[in-house]
Amino acid sequence: MIRYKRVALIGLGLIASSISHAIRRTGLPVEIHGYARSEATRTEAARLGLATIFETAGEAVEGADLVILCVPVGAMGGVAQEIAPHLAPGATVSDVGSVKRAVIDAVQPHLPEGVEFIPGHPLAGTEHSGPGSGFATLFDNRWCLLTPLPESAPAAVEALTGFWQALGARVDRMEPDHHDLVLAVTSHVPHLIAYTMVGVADHLRRVTEQEVINYSAAGFRDFTRIAASDPTMWRDVFLNNREATLDVLGRFTEELFALQRAIRLGDGEHLHAYFTRTRAIRRGIIDAGQDTAAPDFGRLASAKG
Amino acid sequence: MIRYKRVALIGLGLIASSISHAIRRTGLPVEIHGYARSEATRTEAARLGLATIFETAGEAVEGADLVILCVPVGAMGGVAQEIAPHLAPGATVSDVGSVKRAVIDAVQPHLPEGVEFIPGHPLAGTEHSGPGSGFATLFDNRWCLLTPLPESAPAAVEALTGFWQALGARVDRMEPDHHDLVLAVTSHVPHLIAYTMVGVADHLRRVTEQEVINYSAAGFRDFTRIAASDPTMWRDVFLNNREATLDVLGRFTEELFALQRAIRLGDGEHLHAYFTRTRAIRRGIIDAGQDTAAPDFGRLASAKG
Ligand SMILES: NC(=O)c1ccc[n+]([C@@H]2O[C@H](COP(=O)([O-])OP(=O)(O)OC[C@H]3O[C@@H](n4cnc5c(N)ncnc54)[C@H](OP(=O)(O)O)[C@@H]3O)[C@@H](O)[C@H]2O)c1
Ligand SMILES: NC(=O)c1ccc[n+]([C@@H]2O[C@H](COP(=O)([O-])OP(=O)(O)OC[C@H]3O[C@@H](n4cnc5c(N)ncnc54)[C@H](OP(=O)(O)O)[C@@H]3O)[C@@H](O)[C@H]2O)c1
Repeated sequence: MIRYKRVALIGLGLIASSISHAIRRTGLPVEIHGYARSEATRTEAARLGLATIFETAGEAVEGADLVILCVPVGAMGGVAQEIAPHLAPGATVSDVGSVKRAVIDAVQPHLPEGVEFIPGHPLAGTEHSGPGSGFATLFDNRWCLLTPLPESAPAAVEALTGFWQALGARVDRMEPDHHDLVLAVTSHVPHLIAYTMVGVADHLRRVTEQEVINYSAAGFRDFTRIAASDPTMWRDVFLNNREATLDVLGRFTEELFALQRAIRLGDGEHLHAYFTRTRAIRRGIIDAGQDTAAPDFGRLASAKG
Repeated sequence: MIRYKRVALIGLGLIASSISHAIRRTGLPVEIHGYARSEATRTEAARLGLATIFETAGEAVEGADLVILCVPVGAMGGVAQEIAPHLAPGATVSDVGSVKRAVIDAVQPHLPEGVEFIPGHPLAGTEHSGPGSGFATLFDNRWCLLTPLPESAPAAVEALTGFWQALGARVDRMEPDHHDLVLAVTSHVPHLIAYTMVGVADHLRRVTEQEVINYSAAGFRDFTRIAASDPTMWRDVFLNNREATLDVLGRFTEELFALQRAIRLGDGEHLHAYFTRTRAIRRGIIDAGQDTAAPDFGRLASAKG
């Protein structure tokens, strides 16, 4: 159920354009206003009919009862400052940033009294970006995590929950710092090590690029896909979720050294036991419906054609 | 073109069963003989009609002009010793092991004069295993790397090349040690770090298992799939490709530390530049036809369902 009459999207990339398509799919008469930093993106977004496009963020949020900040995490503060004087009283401001504590710290000080700030994070994405990359089914059956503040009005949280559900998502609530730790484990550090592994391949002089490309078996191919994600978005994620990322990275290195040592010492039992344990988690994910047994991202494939 | 009249498959798991299905798909009158260690696998393989099944490896290879060892890398030597007295003069012995130098060292000493040993490695797989997991299209458009020995007869290498091409694969030749280095980069170390990351998630007590499962975004979900691969196969890969694995792991750790340092110091430029470089490799892989732009393993998905 969407209770908002006018939704303003600030930033018009993958997530914002998917929100637009998903709102349209509901068939509800919701007005969509939009703004992006560059002329090129605004023109493209207008051409795609994603929203009524404005020349400034301030104009775009005027009269909106829901404003969603869809820019990289590091840009949230600046955008909040820009829109603050233009926000309608009683409006809800939310965001889709992949980090929550840093966004709260950057955004909250700018917002005027009488505006509800309810941070959010849809756990859905692809490695593509820009206004042309969105699609209506991106959020279907994916989680959207809301991290309301202690002072958030329950009715406003309810309304935002209904909004994401109408877009196809399942909604859960979480404490912001806990969100940042969970995501460091399930997304941020995996991305960092995928980037690293692809970088290693790129540097290894004795292995030609063509070999890396031709003979990339399943493992590495997945990594290159992950490591093709937007550099700005990910730079901002790591800079703004520094503590949890470094914490999880420390544990990762520790475990990796233990496996490295087992390889060096020829300790097959250690390796076998470790690899056996990790299988169980995979089964859990399949049972939870977050992926299929087939090595396939069918949901996205069908959505993209 | 398959020039062999009788092919013996020793080990009847994912790779062997896929070879059987792919041979059958050619419609050529090739006899397939098979053996697996356990009664259970032999019975299941017979039920599936994968091959004429024998009680011993020795019986299975009798009269075969091509014998393919499809067991874990660490089991190759024992199997070679077992079949050696039963090999037909002039037969070709090959294997599908993911490591080549160690397999050559383990197998070659056992083989009698007059038998051609031509090691091979099809770069195709899934995280599933066992006789029921194979399918005819597994090798389609995938590379099969042959690492012939200096003394390998060109005609025998030609025949084996034709065999893999008939199964749908593209064939390339490589020096065994170079193979092991290339695969350490493109497959073995990526698997190890995926295993490690899933292990970290499993250990992190502050993050409940259900959260890791529910909120595993793209990055981690791919890792869990990789880390669901057969523990025995991967233990053997790491124990038998120790040197290249440790070499590549060393470089990986070095690069990871540099990124970790950049995060700690807030060096966004370093991160952004690094993440931008890794994008290019992804484009290369898509251009080389080793994957599609859509985050989808369509080939396997269609084959399995
Ligand atoms: N992609 C994912 O997988 C994913 C998943 C969940 C959440 N998120 C989060 O969603 C947010 C947006 O990601 P996205 O994938 O939609 O990114 P995207 O496709 O790259 O789009 C980003 C948008 O933000 C604008 N922007 C960039 N820097 C800006 C700045 N300094 N000031 C004002 N606007 C700026 C861009 O405008 P121009 O085009 O004019 O430069 C663009 O319209 C990020 O916070 C990210 O953490 C992403
Ligand atoms: N899976 C992949 O992604 C992939 C890709 C390329 C190459 N490879 C290589 O292909 C080979 C086989 O892999 P797979 O995926 O087909 O494995 P799999 O499905 O687990 O099958 C392995 C087969 O080997 C037999 N076996 C295991 N240990 C043995 C031992 N000690 N002595 C005799 N037989 C034994 C098993 O018999 P039981 O069932 O009776 O135990 C089973 O039939 C490995 O060398 C692997 O490195 C795998």
